[in-house]
Amino acid sequence: MRQKFNIVTLGVNDFQKSVDFYEKGLGWEKSSASQGDIAFFSLGGIVLSLYPRHLLAEDATVDAQSSGFSGITIAYNAKSETEVDEVLAEVQKIGATLVKPAQKVFWGGYSGYFKDLDGHLFEVAYNPFLEMDGNDNLILPT
Amino acid sequence: MRQKFNIVTLGVNDFQKSVDFYEKGLGWEKSSASQGDIAFFSLGGIVLSLYPRHLLAEDATVDAQSSGFSGITIAYNAKSETEVDEVLAEVQKIGATLVKPAQKVFWGGYSGYFKDLDGHLFEVAYNPFLEMDGNDNLILPT
Repeated sequence: MRQKFNIVTLGVNDFQKSVDFYEKGLGWEKSSASQGDIAFFSLGGIVLSLYPRHLLAEDATVDAQSSGFSGITIAYNAKSETEVDEVLAEVQKIGATLVKPAQKVFWGGYSGYFKDLDGHLFEVAYNPFLEMDGNDNLILPT
Repeated sequence: MRQKFNIVTLGVNDFQKSVDFYEKGLGWEKSSASQGDIAFFSLGGIVLSLYPRHLLAEDATVDAQSSGFSGITIAYNAKSETEVDEVLAEVQKIGATLVKPAQKVFWGGYSGYFKDLDGHLFEVAYNPFLEMDGNDNLILPT
């Protein structure tokens, strides 16, 4: 198994509302590979996919029922503390909910969390110790 | 907010066991940015991070309690049906559990699911309609 994952799929309760969150709200470009009830957004390196939650559970052959913490978070790395504040303000304007206001955190960065329309948790963080390449991907030491 | 996410963090119950799953089991290279109870694996474009589940919940200021479907799946795109079979066999040898045996699926591909030591759901799929670039990233039409 190569050191790679290709797609993160978020199960969503109202497909069109969630597509609108990214496409109209954030202005992200949806791939023309999207069709019917699946939407793809290329993030340059990984693909974000949206798919109805009950169909995603069905596809994985698991029970769709759930409660509480999903055990997964997805992080967006901002390039400054100011950008963290801006992103958290932007997503709240289009329907996301602030979970943890941006603050200095123990590892030396500045970070906050929001949840999207379906409760998926996203961290928005500025990490002064990490650099990004020309594609806004984090550069990690090997 | 740029069209980008940078890190997927999996909350794990036994940190060292989960690190071993990727590092020793799959032979993935752990970044030297890893320290204490956080591990980073560069996937070329996105970073996979492992962090104790209760600390991840605490960091996000949410209750760690949960049950059932997380609502998120992560996909690995194989380059052939044979590779799907091989990957599903490989991960089971190192402690993952088969959830859905590989099979032809309605969208024209071949896919199965496994769950890791903490129940996170991973799809292993061959999609004959998508190509990958030289870094094994999917090429999506704009």
